[in-house]
Amino acid sequence: MAKISQIIIGDELLNAKINDLNLQILAKEIAPLGFDFKKCTVLGDNFDQVTQEIKKQATENDFLIITGGLGPTKDDLTKSIVANALAVELVENLEAEKIAIKQYKAFGRVFSRESSNYHMLPKDTSPIYNPSGLAPGIHAKLGSCEIFCTPGVPRECEAMIRDSIVPMLKDRAQSAHELFVCRTHSIPEETIFFKLCPNLWKDLEEFGKVSSLPIISGVDITINLKPEFQNEESRQKIRDIIEATEIKNNIWTYGLRSIEEVIVEEAKTKGLTIGFAESCTGGLASSTITNVSGSSSVFLGGVVSYANSVKENIINVKEETLKNHGAVSIETATEMATGSRKALGVDIAISYTGIAGPGGATPGKPVGTVCIGVATSEGASAERYEFRGDRMRLKNKFCQQGLILLLAKVRDL
Amino acid sequence: MAKISQIIIGDELLNAKINDLNLQILAKEIAPLGFDFKKCTVLGDNFDQVTQEIKKQATENDFLIITGGLGPTKDDLTKSIVANALAVELVENLEAEKIAIKQYKAFGRVFSRESSNYHMLPKDTSPIYNPSGLAPGIHAKLGSCEIFCTPGVPRECEAMIRDSIVPMLKDRAQSAHELFVCRTHSIPEETIFFKLCPNLWKDLEEFGKVSSLPIISGVDITINLKPEFQNEESRQKIRDIIEATEIKNNIWTYGLRSIEEVIVEEAKTKGLTIGFAESCTGGLASSTITNVSGSSSVFLGGVVSYANSVKENIINVKEETLKNHGAVSIETATEMATGSRKALGVDIAISYTGIAGPGGATPGKPVGTVCIGVATSEGASAERYEFRGDRMRLKNKFCQQGLILLLAKVRDL
Repeated sequence: MAKISQIIIGDELLNAKINDLNLQILAKEIAPLGFDFKKCTVLGDNFDQVTQEIKKQATENDFLIITGGLGPTKDDLTKSIVANALAVELVENLEAEKIAIKQYKAFGRVFSRESSNYHMLPKDTSPIYNPSGLAPGIHAKLGSCEIFCTPGVPRECEAMIRDSIVPMLKDRAQSAHELFVCRTHSIPEETIFFKLCPNLWKDLEEFGKVSSLPIISGVDITINLKPEFQNEESRQKIRDIIEATEIKNNIWTYGLRSIEEVIVEEAKTKGLTIGFAESCTGGLASSTITNVSGSSSVFLGGVVSYANSVKENIINVKEETLKNHGAVSIETATEMATGSRKALGVDIAISYTGIAGPGGATPGKPVGTVCIGVATSEGASAERYEFRGDRMRLKNKFCQQGLILLLAKVRDL
Repeated sequence: MAKISQIIIGDELLNAKINDLNLQILAKEIAPLGFDFKKCTVLGDNFDQVTQEIKKQATENDFLIITGGLGPTKDDLTKSIVANALAVELVENLEAEKIAIKQYKAFGRVFSRESSNYHMLPKDTSPIYNPSGLAPGIHAKLGSCEIFCTPGVPRECEAMIRDSIVPMLKDRAQSAHELFVCRTHSIPEETIFFKLCPNLWKDLEEFGKVSSLPIISGVDITINLKPEFQNEESRQKIRDIIEATEIKNNIWTYGLRSIEEVIVEEAKTKGLTIGFAESCTGGLASSTITNVSGSSSVFLGGVVSYANSVKENIINVKEETLKNHGAVSIETATEMATGSRKALGVDIAISYTGIAGPGGATPGKPVGTVCIGVATSEGASAERYEFRGDRMRLKNKFCQQGLILLLAKVRDL
């Protein structure tokens, strides 16, 4: 299988200014192509270190993707580094200039050789079209390794890999790898593999390399399928094996779809509309659902009732309920669900009220407490949960738990 | 300066299942300590490849952080790999077992040697306390390099680095590096450095290594300050230089705080309350503001008015306005801002209505169009913008643009 690696360049990644997104972008785009993705190396804007790394990786890989450092400012060194690694000069490249002129025009601006060096490329390399930005990429060859350089801005990196590089790689790819993924909720991985299903790992290993990964919504069980099992019959056999175990009821989907995608699809099929009343999640549940393209056919809206006044005035939570039971209570969550269901005019409303911290804990209600309500035409109820983590994790964990309840309700109705 | 590198282990990172967060976690925690962060390498669960990488990096670094593969399942190989790199056996370690027993208890569970091998460590290594999960880390020495292994779950990785590893590293650190950051909005980097301020880069370079980075809210200009300029007087001198240029009015803050943090702080100081009416952003603006701890003192709530019925019923947008001008219009945005300001009872309301795509474009209103309204006691108005990108980027870009307007309004009032 052809070997591919990635080098990501940028001081900003090693000094904590930003989080890298370009590894996952490359991984996603090449996953269906069947390469052996060996390694991703993140380096600072260091001329000598990056030059050495490129030379070394070019001897170990068939393809090398270099991301970042293609912009117009002085800290953008990739072009000179690649020239240095290839032991050539930077020269004028009319094809690169043509691409730059075209892209500047698309962005309503005019290219000039003074304000960027996009018309220069290392000798004997070609430009790569940038569908979503100004800087052309670079296509080079070092020994037997093909090198592709993309900008570091994730949007530009993604568009260039998808539209310009993947089509070139496709011709060179061999057998694709295929994942079988089973997504579960509400049980830790040890409980799955050591208590509930002690033989499951061994049984699944016959079909390929097994891995277990805790993610925010639960545990993913993944099999990298051997070629002979990359077919629907084998997939069904694997599903039967898993569903014969005690985790049957904790499976919420197979495959890599997110829970919000599954909810939107299944609610659409059933003609159900949904909405949220969010306190501690602050709009995250609504935002998560609306990340799904086409969600507008099922999601009508939400109320972020952060202050008690908003709970009372917009979704009709009673003042006495808040006074007697507190904002974080089963009673308030139930009224939030009922009130928002009515105000939004939806079939199913989910409500969240809890303490994401770091402040706000009260006796008996530690940080991490959340009450989640569900209201349908059949009535409303709420459950209380406790999770651990910092503010961001808790917001996410609360949100996911509500989405699990929402999916169950969509399937029930 | 002492050299540090990171190795991140996990098939899930190279097969696109999840996005890595642990590089930024490490970078953030060690940034104030003054190490030379050389490299981060991401590898799959490959016994031989990881062993080789550890051996190689141990010769090039003073410290090596290995992240991932410490869990209880068979795909968690780090413990055996480290033993292999050190050329020792795995042995029982009573200290590790004590930590595991304590942590299981904290999570309301009981440790058993059958369901995990947390009591085993490579010979002559010590366990590292895991404040936020079950698996102990590993502290080892290979040649002159100190090795620290942490779990891959970001929450556990972060807690272990912060609470257990940073205190050990602190003693060994030398001079800290210090960043000067200027955050700007609404102008591309080329316009800044080649048109508006052609001498700025050179002027700033006297103070340290300069870099320019486009992020979602605009362009960050960063200087990695030389030791002699790590003081308030120099910082003021740099600010004076920047503010003497034409980008003066595009600077929204200095330092690494996010725009939502700045908004919450400044609104709090002025005693202003804020709220949102969100259509195309789907709750993202509310969720972003509520990521800030303490935001409840300024953010009262929001309405996610995805469907027109919600716009009409909860925030009082007129049916005629929607019919005559469409949901995505200056007129609708203005009414959304006015109506939500009243419904939420806030001083400033920001409204969003636009087309995040991929569907929904109409003649004259392409995907990427957004109208953003601002309402205060002085009245309401709205502006129309056009951005480029996919659904996720557009949601983010819309959200950021509204936050820029919100911050300006907080500063005005």
